[in-house]
Amino acid sequence: MKFRIEKDTMGEVQVPADKYWGAQTERSRNNFKIGPPASMPLDIVYGFAHLKKAAAYANCELGVLEEEKRDLIARVCDEILEGKLDDQFPLVIWQTGSGTQSNMNVNEVIANRAHELAGHKIGEGKKTIQPNDDVNKSQSSNDTFPTGMHIAAYTKIAEVTIPGVTQLRNTLDKKAKEFDKIVKIGRTHLMDATPLTLGQEFSGYVSQLDHGLKALHNTLDHLSELALGGTAVGTGLNTPKGYDVLVAKYIAKFTGLPFKTAPNKFEALAAHDALVESHGALKQLAVSLNKIANDIRMMASGPRSGIGEIIIPANEPGSSIMPGKVNPTQCEALTMVCAQVMGNDVAISVGGAQGHYELNVFKPLMASNFLQSAELLGDACVSFDIHCAVGIEPNHKVIKQLLNNSLMLVTALNTKIGYYKAAEIANTAHRNGTTLREEAINLGYVTAEEYDEWVKPEDMTGSLKN
Amino acid sequence: MKFRIEKDTMGEVQVPADKYWGAQTERSRNNFKIGPPASMPLDIVYGFAHLKKAAAYANCELGVLEEEKRDLIARVCDEILEGKLDDQFPLVIWQTGSGTQSNMNVNEVIANRAHELAGHKIGEGKKTIQPNDDVNKSQSSNDTFPTGMHIAAYTKIAEVTIPGVTQLRNTLDKKAKEFDKIVKIGRTHLMDATPLTLGQEFSGYVSQLDHGLKALHNTLDHLSELALGGTAVGTGLNTPKGYDVLVAKYIAKFTGLPFKTAPNKFEALAAHDALVESHGALKQLAVSLNKIANDIRMMASGPRSGIGEIIIPANEPGSSIMPGKVNPTQCEALTMVCAQVMGNDVAISVGGAQGHYELNVFKPLMASNFLQSAELLGDACVSFDIHCAVGIEPNHKVIKQLLNNSLMLVTALNTKIGYYKAAEIANTAHRNGTTLREEAINLGYVTAEEYDEWVKPEDMTGSLKN
Amino acid sequence: MKFRIEKDTMGEVQVPADKYWGAQTERSRNNFKIGPPASMPLDIVYGFAHLKKAAAYANCELGVLEEEKRDLIARVCDEILEGKLDDQFPLVIWQTGSGTQSNMNVNEVIANRAHELAGHKIGEGKKTIQPNDDVNKSQSSNDTFPTGMHIAAYTKIAEVTIPGVTQLRNTLDKKAKEFDKIVKIGRTHLMDATPLTLGQEFSGYVSQLDHGLKALHNTLDHLSELALGGTAVGTGLNTPKGYDVLVAKYIAKFTGLPFKTAPNKFEALAAHDALVESHGALKQLAVSLNKIANDIRMMASGPRSGIGEIIIPANEPGSSIMPGKVNPTQCEALTMVCAQVMGNDVAISVGGAQGHYELNVFKPLMASNFLQSAELLGDACVSFDIHCAVGIEPNHKVIKQLLNNSLMLVTALNTKIGYYKAAEIANTAHRNGTTLREEAINLGYVTAEEYDEWVKPEDMTGSLKN
Amino acid sequence: MKFRIEKDTMGEVQVPADKYWGAQTERSRNNFKIGPPASMPLDIVYGFAHLKKAAAYANCELGVLEEEKRDLIARVCDEILEGKLDDQFPLVIWQTGSGTQSNMNVNEVIANRAHELAGHKIGEGKKTIQPNDDVNKSQSSNDTFPTGMHIAAYTKIAEVTIPGVTQLRNTLDKKAKEFDKIVKIGRTHLMDATPLTLGQEFSGYVSQLDHGLKALHNTLDHLSELALGGTAVGTGLNTPKGYDVLVAKYIAKFTGLPFKTAPNKFEALAAHDALVESHGALKQLAVSLNKIANDIRMMASGPRSGIGEIIIPANEPGSSIMPGKVNPTQCEALTMVCAQVMGNDVAISVGGAQGHYELNVFKPLMASNFLQSAELLGDACVSFDIHCAVGIEPNHKVIKQLLNNSLMLVTALNTKIGYYKAAEIANTAHRNGTTLREEAINLGYVTAEEYDEWVKPEDMTGSLKN
Repeated sequence: MKFRIEKDTMGEVQVPADKYWGAQTERSRNNFKIGPPASMPLDIVYGFAHLKKAAAYANCELGVLEEEKRDLIARVCDEILEGKLDDQFPLVIWQTGSGTQSNMNVNEVIANRAHELAGHKIGEGKKTIQPNDDVNKSQSSNDTFPTGMHIAAYTKIAEVTIPGVTQLRNTLDKKAKEFDKIVKIGRTHLMDATPLTLGQEFSGYVSQLDHGLKALHNTLDHLSELALGGTAVGTGLNTPKGYDVLVAKYIAKFTGLPFKTAPNKFEALAAHDALVESHGALKQLAVSLNKIANDIRMMASGPRSGIGEIIIPANEPGSSIMPGKVNPTQCEALTMVCAQVMGNDVAISVGGAQGHYELNVFKPLMASNFLQSAELLGDACVSFDIHCAVGIEPNHKVIKQLLNNSLMLVTALNTKIGYYKAAEIANTAHRNGTTLREEAINLGYVTAEEYDEWVKPEDMTGSLKN
Repeated sequence: MKFRIEKDTMGEVQVPADKYWGAQTERSRNNFKIGPPASMPLDIVYGFAHLKKAAAYANCELGVLEEEKRDLIARVCDEILEGKLDDQFPLVIWQTGSGTQSNMNVNEVIANRAHELAGHKIGEGKKTIQPNDDVNKSQSSNDTFPTGMHIAAYTKIAEVTIPGVTQLRNTLDKKAKEFDKIVKIGRTHLMDATPLTLGQEFSGYVSQLDHGLKALHNTLDHLSELALGGTAVGTGLNTPKGYDVLVAKYIAKFTGLPFKTAPNKFEALAAHDALVESHGALKQLAVSLNKIANDIRMMASGPRSGIGEIIIPANEPGSSIMPGKVNPTQCEALTMVCAQVMGNDVAISVGGAQGHYELNVFKPLMASNFLQSAELLGDACVSFDIHCAVGIEPNHKVIKQLLNNSLMLVTALNTKIGYYKAAEIANTAHRNGTTLREEAINLGYVTAEEYDEWVKPEDMTGSLKN
Repeated sequence: MKFRIEKDTMGEVQVPADKYWGAQTERSRNNFKIGPPASMPLDIVYGFAHLKKAAAYANCELGVLEEEKRDLIARVCDEILEGKLDDQFPLVIWQTGSGTQSNMNVNEVIANRAHELAGHKIGEGKKTIQPNDDVNKSQSSNDTFPTGMHIAAYTKIAEVTIPGVTQLRNTLDKKAKEFDKIVKIGRTHLMDATPLTLGQEFSGYVSQLDHGLKALHNTLDHLSELALGGTAVGTGLNTPKGYDVLVAKYIAKFTGLPFKTAPNKFEALAAHDALVESHGALKQLAVSLNKIANDIRMMASGPRSGIGEIIIPANEPGSSIMPGKVNPTQCEALTMVCAQVMGNDVAISVGGAQGHYELNVFKPLMASNFLQSAELLGDACVSFDIHCAVGIEPNHKVIKQLLNNSLMLVTALNTKIGYYKAAEIANTAHRNGTTLREEAINLGYVTAEEYDEWVKPEDMTGSLKN
Repeated sequence: MKFRIEKDTMGEVQVPADKYWGAQTERSRNNFKIGPPASMPLDIVYGFAHLKKAAAYANCELGVLEEEKRDLIARVCDEILEGKLDDQFPLVIWQTGSGTQSNMNVNEVIANRAHELAGHKIGEGKKTIQPNDDVNKSQSSNDTFPTGMHIAAYTKIAEVTIPGVTQLRNTLDKKAKEFDKIVKIGRTHLMDATPLTLGQEFSGYVSQLDHGLKALHNTLDHLSELALGGTAVGTGLNTPKGYDVLVAKYIAKFTGLPFKTAPNKFEALAAHDALVESHGALKQLAVSLNKIANDIRMMASGPRSGIGEIIIPANEPGSSIMPGKVNPTQCEALTMVCAQVMGNDVAISVGGAQGHYELNVFKPLMASNFLQSAELLGDACVSFDIHCAVGIEPNHKVIKQLLNNSLMLVTALNTKIGYYKAAEIANTAHRNGTTLREEAINLGYVTAEEYDEWVKPEDMTGSLKN
C-alpha cells in the first residue's frame, strides 16, 4: 500500500496515496476503531455536500470567497452527491460527538479533489483550496454537523418515511372501503364482543396512520431550522453579515426542501430537540404500526387452529422443518422495526438530554439512530404494503361462522330488556352451549319475533358511520 | 365494620356499609391487591364526573333519559368534582386494562349517592338510578375510560404543565435580556471556546422551551378527540343518533376545553396514540429541561473549586455532615423528574404498542404515567423557577477572569492570518502558560495594535443577534 | 394551626407544633411542592430506622456515643418500624438528589421524639439528642441514603418479589405436571405447528421464571453492599475505626438479611449500579411475565370466536355494556405492571448514568422506581396466581379438535418421505380443505397403514422429556 | 447478469449464477428490501457454521447422516468460518422473525458449495446434499437461529466485551494506585466537598467495572444454554435420541466455549430471556462507563476556564474553526456508545416481551442489537483505554490550589466543635471571601494550633483504605 504525507496543526500523517482524505480523517480512523468501519451514514455526507456547496455560494456572494474556489467546491460537492466519492468517507459514528472529524473528512476530500480538478496532482504543490480556510469558511463543525443532520433527516423523512407510510395507509384505506359491508365479530380484551365491519376495523388503522403522519408533519418546522451561520458557539463569529439567512436559502434551493436559518443558533448547536421531536413522531408511528401488524397476524392466524378471518399472501416457505407452513413474515419484519424504533427513541433521548453548555456532543449518535428509524419505517411499510397489505382478503366463511356463534350479540337487547336480563341470557347460553336466541325465548324475556327484529348484527355496526 | 349487600350479574357481595361503591368495585378491591390502594388517579375520576354528567345531559336531550335522573346524576358529578367524594374511589391502576372497574366504581357511587339525594337510604329499596342502565347509558367502559383519560390529560397539561413550563420560560427570557451584555467564555466539549454573552446562553434555553411548548401544543388536537359515543367496539351501538357529537359538546362546555368527538371511534378505543403523541412532547420538554438544569448547576458549581460563573439561591443546608454546604437542589429535583418522564415514555409506548383488535387494554397504565409526567413537569418547573431561576445572578468577577484567560479568543484571527497560524499561537501560549497576545506578537504574526483591534471578546459575540 | 420554632444553620423556621420534624424538613416541604405530598416511600424511612439504630449501636460500642443516647435513638427507631410515626415523613421524592432532606427528616424526628421519651416537651429546653451531632453521628446523607435504599430494596425483593414470583412459578409448575399428557397443537409465528403437550408449554413458563429468579438472586450480592461508613465522599471522614464493618453487622442483625459493608465506598456513593443491576433482573422477569400472560389470554380467548384451549376463572363482570362478558383481567393487570417495570428500568438507567464525581444525585428517583417495580411484580404475581393461574383448566374438547385438524402433523413424515413430498401433501390438503391422511394416500406417498403408524401426535411430543 | 434456476416448495426462482444461495434466500432478498442489504450480522452466520458442522457430526455419530455428507458439510462450514464465503449472505435483519430465511441461506450455501466440492457444477445434476433434508437434518430454524444467536453473543462477549472492559479496568486500577497519594478536593452535587485522593476516585471506577464484569459473568450460564435439539416447537421432533446433548458437546468443542443443551427447549425457542439477561449486564456497564467518562471529561475540562485537575492526551485537532482546541473525544465516543446500549436494551426488551406461544419472532432484532452493544462496548473501552485512559496525568498545581481553597475542610472540625459552629465558620469565610483558618480563629472556636492540627486534608482521606 502506498502512502502520501498530509499535515494538520498537530503535524504529519501518512495517508493512503489513492484517497482524497487528509490528516484529520486519517487520525480519526486510527483513533476510533469502534464497530465496523465507515458506519457514519452516507446520508450525512450528502447533507454536508449540500451545505458545503451552499456555503461556497453564500461566501462568494458576500464577497469572502473567489468564484473559482466556489466553482471547484461546488463541482466536488456534485460528485459527492452523485455517489462518485462514496468510498472517501471511512469514518465511524463513534468519533467525537460534534462530528468534527466527519466535517474535516468532507473538507479534506473536497480540497484534495478540487486540487485535482484544478489540474494538479493530489499531494503536490500548495493546495488550490484550503480545507479549513476555504471549504470550511464561515463554518464550524458545531454548525455544519447539525445542519448536515437536519438536511439528512428531513430528506429521509420526505423521501422515504412519508411516502412509505402513505403508501401503506392508502392500501389500508382502500381495504377499509372494500370491506365496508363485511360484518364480523368484534373483540375486546381478546374476547368476543359486539360486531363491527372488517372495513371499520381497517378504518381504525387508517386513522392511526393519518394521525401519525400529521404528527410527523407537525415536527418538520423545527427540523427545517438550520444551525449554519452559528459557527463555533452560536454567535456567528467569522461569518459575513447576512450569511446565515443566505446560506439557508441556498440549501433550500439545492435540496428543494423548505429549510430556513434557525432563529436561535445557541439552541441549534447546544441541543437537538428537533431530532427528539421528529423522532417522537416516528416512535408514535412505530407504536401504531406494531398494533396494526399484530392485529393482522392474529386475524390471519391458522390456517386451521387460529382465528383465520383474513388471508394474507404466502410469499415464501415458512419453515425449514414443517412442510407447507406459511407465516406472517411481513408482520414480523415490521414489528421488529417498530421495536428498533422504540429503542432508538431512548438512545436519542438519552443523547439529547446530555448536552453541555454551548454544544451537544451526541450528534452522530442521534443522527444515525434517527436516520435508521426513518429509513426502516419507510422501507418496512412499503415491504409490508407490497407483500402483505395489498393481498389481504377476507375469509368470508370463517367470518360468518364466528359472527353467528357470538354471545355478545345480546348487547343489542340492553336497551330493550336491561343489562341484567341480557346478562342472564348470555350466561345461560354460555353455560349450556346453546344459542342466545334459544335462551332468550326460554327465559321468557323476548319472543322469537322480537329477538329476530332486535338482534341483527348488521344493524349493530351502523350507528356511527366512521 | 358494618357491611351491606350489593349485587351484580355474578351475585351478591358484601360492601362496607358507609361507602357508596357497589359490588363490582368491591370485587375489584379484592381481586387486585397490587401496590398501594387507591392508586387510580383522582384526575381520572374527575374526568369521569365530567363525562357522566355530559352523558346524562346528552341522553336527556336526545330523549332517552328522564330529566329527574339527569339532574340527580349531575348533582353527584358536581359533588365529585368538588372533591367531596374522594374517598369513594378505592381502586388501583393495576386492574382490568380497560378501566371497566373504575367506570363501574363511578357508576355505582353515582347511583348510590343519587339514591340518597333522592331521599332514600343507601342499600334500601330499588335503586332510584341504575348504575348500568342509567348512569352508564349510551356508554361502555371502552369509550368512557379513554374519554376520562383525555379529559384528565388535557386538563393537566392546560392547568399544570403549560403554565408551569411557561412560568420558567418567562423567567429565563427575562434573565436572557438582563444578561445580554455580560460577555463570557463559551464552552464546547466542556472545553474553552469562543465567547458569547450570558444572555445568549440563556436565550438558547428559552428557545428550547418555546419549541417544546409549541410541540406540546401541536399534539393537543389529537388529545381533544373523545372516544365517547363509540361504546363497546367503536360502532356506537346503543347510542341515540347524534349522541357522540352532542356529548362532546357538553364535555367541552363543562370543562371549558376544546373537546370534540373523535372522527374515528375505532382508533379511539383500540389505540391511544394521542397519549403517545402528547407524551412524546412531554418527553421532549424533559430532554430540554435536563440540559438546562445541568448547565445551570455546572455554571453554579463551586463555590471555590468549580466553574462559579453564576450564583443560585441557597434554600436549605445542603449537607448533614459538611457544614455550610449549599447545593443545586432544584436542579436535582428537576433532572430526577426528567429521568422519570423519560422512563414513563417507554411505559406508555410499550402499553400503546400492544393493543389487540378493538381495544387497547393498557389504559390505566398509560393514563397514570401520562398524568404523573404532566404534573411533575409543571410542578418541577414552578419549583425550579421560584426557588432557583428567579434568583440566578452572574458572578461578574469570575466571568471576567475566565474570559480574559481564554486561548480561544485566537479564533478572531482566523480571518486575518488563517487557521494554521492562529493554531500555532494558541498552542504556543498553552504550552508556555502565557497569553495569546504575547505569543501572537512574539511569533510575528500580528502587531500589538492589530491584536488589540482584532481580538475584542465583545465583538466576537455580535454577528448574530438572536 | 399551631406552630413552634425550629432552627438550623440557616436560621429559624415555623413548624407545625404537633409534628416531630424540624427546620430542614419544613424547608424541604416548602421548597419542593412537586407532585403529591409524602411521596418518599415509607420503605426508605424504615430502611433509615434500621440504619440509625445500627449506627447508634456501633457508635456506642466504639465509644463515641453514650448508652443513654443509643437507647433513646433505638427506641424511636423501633417506633418508626412499628409504623407509629408514619405521618412524620411528609417529604417528596423530588427533592435534593442525595436524599439529604429525608435523612434530616429522620434525624429530626428521632431527636424530637427522643426528647419526649426523655421526659421533655418537644421544642422546650436543649434537645436531649442533637439531630446532626448525635443521630447523624458517623454518617452523612451521602452514605445513609444509599444504605437506606439498599435495605429497602433488598427487603422488598426478599419479602415481596421473590415470594410472589415463586408462588406463581409453583402453580405453573403444578399445572405443567397436571397437563403433561394433554397433547395439543403447537403454534409458531401464531400459525399452526407441530404438536406438544399443554404441560410442555407450561414448563417453558416455569423455566422462564426459574431463570429469572436465578438472575435476580445473582444480583443480591451487589445489593447487600452498604455504603454506610463512607460518610461525605467515601473516605469515612469522622467515623471511628472499624465502624463501617460493625454498623453493617448490626444492620444485618436487625434486618435478618446478609448485609455487609461495601468494599469500595467511593463506588457506593457515586454510583448505584447495584440498583441498576437488580432492576435489570426485575425487568427480565417483566419480559418473561408479559410473554406468559399474553399466551394465557390468547389461549383463553373466546369463548366462541377465539382460541379457547384453556379456561380461566371468571372473577368479575367484564363489561359495563356487554352482558355476560368475562375478561382476562389478571393478565391485563400483570402486563400493565410489566410495561411499568420496563419504563422504570429506563428511568433508573438514566438516573444511574448521570452521577457526577463523588455523588450520584438521582438517588430518590432510582429508589422509588426500584421499590415500585419490586412491589408491583410481587403483588401482581400473587394476584395473578390466586385469581387466575390456580384456576386454569384445559378445554379438552377444543384442544382435541384443533389438534386433529392440523396440517403440521405432516412434519412427522419428513424423515420418511422427505421435506418436499411432505410439503406437497400439506399444501394439497390446505388447498382442497381436506385431511392430510386423504391427500397423503391420494398422492401415493404413503399407505393408510404407514400414515397411521407414522403420524401419531402423541409420539410427536416425546423425543425430549423436558 | 447471469442467472440459474433454483427451486423450493413454492416453485422456481432465478438466482445470480455465481452465488451459492438458493431459492429461499433469493425470495427473501426480494421480499424484504428494508434498510441496507446484508445487514444480518456475519457473527450470526459464523454461529450457524459452527452449529451446522456440529449437527452434521452429531447426526453422523447417531447414524442418521453419512460420513461423506458430514465431511462435505463440515468443509463448507470451515470455509464460512475462514471468511471465504462472506459475500454469500445477502439477507437483512428485517426478515421473518424466526430467522428462517437466514437458516435457509446457510443451508442453501452449504448444499451448493458442497455440490461443488463434490466435483459438480453448481446448479447441475441432483444436489449431492439437500439443504432441508441433509444440512438442516435434526434441525429447525426455530432451534438453529437461537443457537446461532447464543453462539454469536457468547463469543462476542468472550472475545470482545470482556477483554475490552477488562483492559480499561486494569488501566484505571493502575492509575488508582499511581494516584494514591494525590489529595484533592471532593465534589458532591458538583459542589466542593471534603477531600479524597485522586486514587480513591479512580478506585471507584474500578469497583464499578469489577461489579459490572461480575454481573456479566453471572449471566453467561443462561447464555450457554442452546436450543438446538428442540426443532420446531421444543419437543425435539425428528431428532435421534441423545442428539441435543451431543450436538451441544460438539458446539462446545468447536467453539472452545462452555455451551450445553438447554434443560428446557420450550423456553429456549419461545423466549430469549438469556439475551435480555446478558444485555441487562451490558446496559449496566454502559451506565457505569457513562459516569466514568463524564467524570473524566469534567475533570479534564479547560484548559483555562474549567476544572483542569487532570490532563488527557491530545489526539487530534479539536475544532475546524477554533485553532489549538483539544477535546475529550474518546469520552464522547464512549458516552455515545453508552447511549446506544441503553437504547438497544429497550429494543431487546420490547422484542423479548412479545413472544407468542411456542416461538419468539423478534430473534434477528434481538440478536443484532445484542451483538452491536457487545462489540461497541468492547471496542470503545479499548479505544478509550489506548487513546485516553493510559495517558491521564494529574495536574498537580491545579489540584493543590483547589484543595487549599476549599471551605469543606471545615468538616474535620465537626467532631471537635460540633456541626453548628463549623457551619458558622464556613459560612463566614464564604461571605467574606476569606480562609477557614482566619475565620475559625476570629470566631474564637479554635486556636491556630488546634486548627493546624485538626484540619489536615491528607488525614481526611484516610479512615477507610479502599
